[in-house]
Amino acid sequence: MTKAYTVGIDYGTNSVRALVVDCADGREVGTFVFDYPSGEQGILLDPKDPHLARQNPADYVAGLEASVNGALGAAEKHPGFSRAEVIGLGVDTTGSTPIPVDAKGRPLALDPKWKANLAAHAWLWKDHTGAEEAAAITRTAAAHAPQYLAPIGGTYSSEWFWSKIWHCLKEAPDVFAAAHSWVELADFVPAVLAGIDDPAKIQRCVCAAGHKAMYSDVWGGLPAKDFLKRLDPRLADLRDRLFEKAWAADRPAGALSKEWAARLGLREGLPIAMGAFDAHYGAVGSGVRAGTLVKIIGTSTCDCAVASAKEKVQDVPGICGIVNGSIMPGYYGIEAGQSAVGDILKWWVEGVCQGDEKLHAQLSSEAAKLKPGQSGLVALDWNNGNRTILVDPLLTGLLVGQTLHTTRAEIYRALIEATACGARAIIERMREYGVPIDRVVCCGGIAEKNPLFMQIYADVIGHPMLVAGSPQTPALGSAISAAVAAGAHPSFEAAQEKMTSLKETRYTPNSAAKRVYDELYGLYRELHDSFGGVRGASADFPSLMKRLLALRERETAHQEA
Amino acid sequence: MTKAYTVGIDYGTNSVRALVVDCADGREVGTFVFDYPSGEQGILLDPKDPHLARQNPADYVAGLEASVNGALGAAEKHPGFSRAEVIGLGVDTTGSTPIPVDAKGRPLALDPKWKANLAAHAWLWKDHTGAEEAAAITRTAAAHAPQYLAPIGGTYSSEWFWSKIWHCLKEAPDVFAAAHSWVELADFVPAVLAGIDDPAKIQRCVCAAGHKAMYSDVWGGLPAKDFLKRLDPRLADLRDRLFEKAWAADRPAGALSKEWAARLGLREGLPIAMGAFDAHYGAVGSGVRAGTLVKIIGTSTCDCAVASAKEKVQDVPGICGIVNGSIMPGYYGIEAGQSAVGDILKWWVEGVCQGDEKLHAQLSSEAAKLKPGQSGLVALDWNNGNRTILVDPLLTGLLVGQTLHTTRAEIYRALIEATACGARAIIERMREYGVPIDRVVCCGGIAEKNPLFMQIYADVIGHPMLVAGSPQTPALGSAISAAVAAGAHPSFEAAQEKMTSLKETRYTPNSAAKRVYDELYGLYRELHDSFGGVRGASADFPSLMKRLLALRERETAHQEA
Repeated sequence: MTKAYTVGIDYGTNSVRALVVDCADGREVGTFVFDYPSGEQGILLDPKDPHLARQNPADYVAGLEASVNGALGAAEKHPGFSRAEVIGLGVDTTGSTPIPVDAKGRPLALDPKWKANLAAHAWLWKDHTGAEEAAAITRTAAAHAPQYLAPIGGTYSSEWFWSKIWHCLKEAPDVFAAAHSWVELADFVPAVLAGIDDPAKIQRCVCAAGHKAMYSDVWGGLPAKDFLKRLDPRLADLRDRLFEKAWAADRPAGALSKEWAARLGLREGLPIAMGAFDAHYGAVGSGVRAGTLVKIIGTSTCDCAVASAKEKVQDVPGICGIVNGSIMPGYYGIEAGQSAVGDILKWWVEGVCQGDEKLHAQLSSEAAKLKPGQSGLVALDWNNGNRTILVDPLLTGLLVGQTLHTTRAEIYRALIEATACGARAIIERMREYGVPIDRVVCCGGIAEKNPLFMQIYADVIGHPMLVAGSPQTPALGSAISAAVAAGAHPSFEAAQEKMTSLKETRYTPNSAAKRVYDELYGLYRELHDSFGGVRGASADFPSLMKRLLALRERETAHQEA
Repeated sequence: MTKAYTVGIDYGTNSVRALVVDCADGREVGTFVFDYPSGEQGILLDPKDPHLARQNPADYVAGLEASVNGALGAAEKHPGFSRAEVIGLGVDTTGSTPIPVDAKGRPLALDPKWKANLAAHAWLWKDHTGAEEAAAITRTAAAHAPQYLAPIGGTYSSEWFWSKIWHCLKEAPDVFAAAHSWVELADFVPAVLAGIDDPAKIQRCVCAAGHKAMYSDVWGGLPAKDFLKRLDPRLADLRDRLFEKAWAADRPAGALSKEWAARLGLREGLPIAMGAFDAHYGAVGSGVRAGTLVKIIGTSTCDCAVASAKEKVQDVPGICGIVNGSIMPGYYGIEAGQSAVGDILKWWVEGVCQGDEKLHAQLSSEAAKLKPGQSGLVALDWNNGNRTILVDPLLTGLLVGQTLHTTRAEIYRALIEATACGARAIIERMREYGVPIDRVVCCGGIAEKNPLFMQIYADVIGHPMLVAGSPQTPALGSAISAAVAAGAHPSFEAAQEKMTSLKETRYTPNSAAKRVYDELYGLYRELHDSFGGVRGASADFPSLMKRLLALRERETAHQEA
């Protein structure tokens, strides 16, 4: 059998990683990480606006060449590997990270005229400047086009495509006017590799379009012009310059251009797989399949499941995305998530306790000695809002049960337990609406490195926690997509069979711990429903947490005025 | 005018302080502090039981001589002072701190036979080993003698007289059997000075008896034997060996014995004022009078008010003590409190943030830059339970509103605000039941040293916060009582007029801050009523916090078994 390799390219928040993978068995033979040089760890910030987070598209292009060449160079140290055996490339990225481009598909920010304008750069997934626009989109859709909200759980997010573009229109109308079109980073990188110089010809993935741009074949693509006109007529005009159709990954995004073939030392014309979000290709690289939930556990968590597209999947209230083909062709991709998981522990250890990795380890070791329920603490995991199932980015944290003897380690454990309860709430919601989950595979740094965390998840969720074999599941998933695009495997399922694995370590629920956690979870749900406004609140009398937030907003505005 | 001085002796938790005061103007001319040598900072602990806190009565006796002689020695450095000008002594102590004594009124623990037995020592106010007994007393009284509960707010505490003695009976029956009687520390020290060697002759103050031992002239003294028999027949028997009558401070507790006159270099026969609890004489030393609330702010808070005994004062639900004559003769003493104030800040800064005095100062300075409502946080101040108005020592803390950006200083401020809301709840409850409050005088370390804290209190409570002139108000109050007993002033009111003062610094509410805090206080009250079980809870379905506590108790017991 001829050797065949693909390259998976994973655009993260601070860096881009390329990974060279053996199509026969998923073996990873070379990798390279390129840190974005611009801004703070690759993020352009505005000291006057904490909600702003942009990236320099030049970093993406420089990182493309550096990371792929770096990974190929590392692979060449393996006896028997040569660049000639690379048969395709795949790309995954953060998202929604839309970039304003000119009529040639070139990011405005690459033009010296626009370079200094932050609005002309890429609008990174975690940019929240469009919060007001997101709320207005939700209101308008609720009133005039509720079908748009159903598959996204009922609430449009400030992190998504239209919120950002509309905010640009309002805050930087010159940039908006100069942009011929807008392209998601997941579509931009494959287009660069393929040398596409017309935005109309850029292949758009249904992953980004369906989850973030309210695209659906059910209503004929992007939201109707009538709807966009209610937001702003210029958004309706823009629709004509975006795209008509978005695609699943059962077709390639393009073929490697002569120029990029030369830059990477690869053959011209190699298939470039359709791009996707990191979480989705991460799910592929973790072995997602019908009945499997993949949990990508990091600073935040993304939960991905798939359900056969042969049967209709009902909308699940509070689940922020159900899109046909978004994770794998032939399946509905179902996406949920928690807005902060590792970030909550980081906040506690670094922000409050002013510690470092050593303190993380110390608190983790102390927390491991505690038994479920003994601290008398229960917390809500909403320090960065709730993505699923309440879909409210403004919700905040809560801790109850502290005494004069409560320790840092007890609170550390209570925060882990809170995120585990949040994870359980998502699984219960999915099951309630007919998404079967009989296997949970975790990936990401926490899954790899924190046994206490994983055991608590097994005990709270009451299900074994498996761990993906690769520490680079998004890049591996991109490489798998490339292998399918190149014909090395007949399908994603076949490619996953060969190219993905599980670690031997798995975490099995302890029945005594689970019994206590069933009870604690009941208390968590009471707090969840009460402070989340599910029970006892109304439009006229919002939940206590919402009223507290309103007070904060008002007093903060008052001070700034 | 002849110079006249009195000595106030203040028995605290870790040390005893004596203070020599000029009766003409309250000038403090000498002071001395004696640290109790036994145990941990004067407290005998049991590593196996965190609820246990005892003290060695030998420390009280040694400290009496050392502190008074030390203070008199210091006073002698003032030109013109001599011991011959001392006209009386007064004593205040922690409480309820009952001591088992033999037929001579001598603490059992002074007998080598009993020294090693912790039950034979003084049962310090914060000993909580009698929690089960306290609950049983409350239940029994509720069923058979509800009148006993009315003046103590409805709940008998584990910190009080009968809970401790009954617990001793159960856990150390040999000590109980050996004890001829039990004497409160506030009555014990004057009896030592007076050389009284018969427990039946020890003068018992109504302060300790009325607030802690369910004594009232209304029902003829201590609880009836029938009632005590329901607890244990041996408690009913003990009643005969306790006391028939307790007294306000309008009569002395005794006259200085020959032996102690010699030990202190004072005249034999000097009047010794009736003892009282530190908070009550602290209120006297702060200038308490009808319409004035004195807040003694330290690790916990004690709130004292008086109302003329010429009119009947109604019982106030949740106020733990209303006793005729307990603070000053001729007035009902009304006592409330918060179980933890300074202790909550100490927990946060030292326990969680692992800092010291420097960090206290740093967080205080950062917190001072925040405006009301800006942090979006609201907390409950129940880390050590709630003394007033819920009277539940097991309640726990709560914090809501934290984000990934919430700082230590924001939480520090939120905790101060929570204790201020707790203080406001007490004042509102008092006013609601007809106790007028038109002046608030604060004393204690926090009132002296923390302007941020005091300003937040003024803003949350909406009332100017005055600060007592003396930093040693309990010892000053004892000295005032001694001055009245010695005839230097015709009444407490007259003595206070001359001997107490206010600091020039006062904290006035800022109207803008008060408006925000009125709103935050509303949220605090919602949490208070919901988590405190005032609303939405029942015996069959306790509040979430109580169910969480039950779970903690069960799992802790489970682990220990």
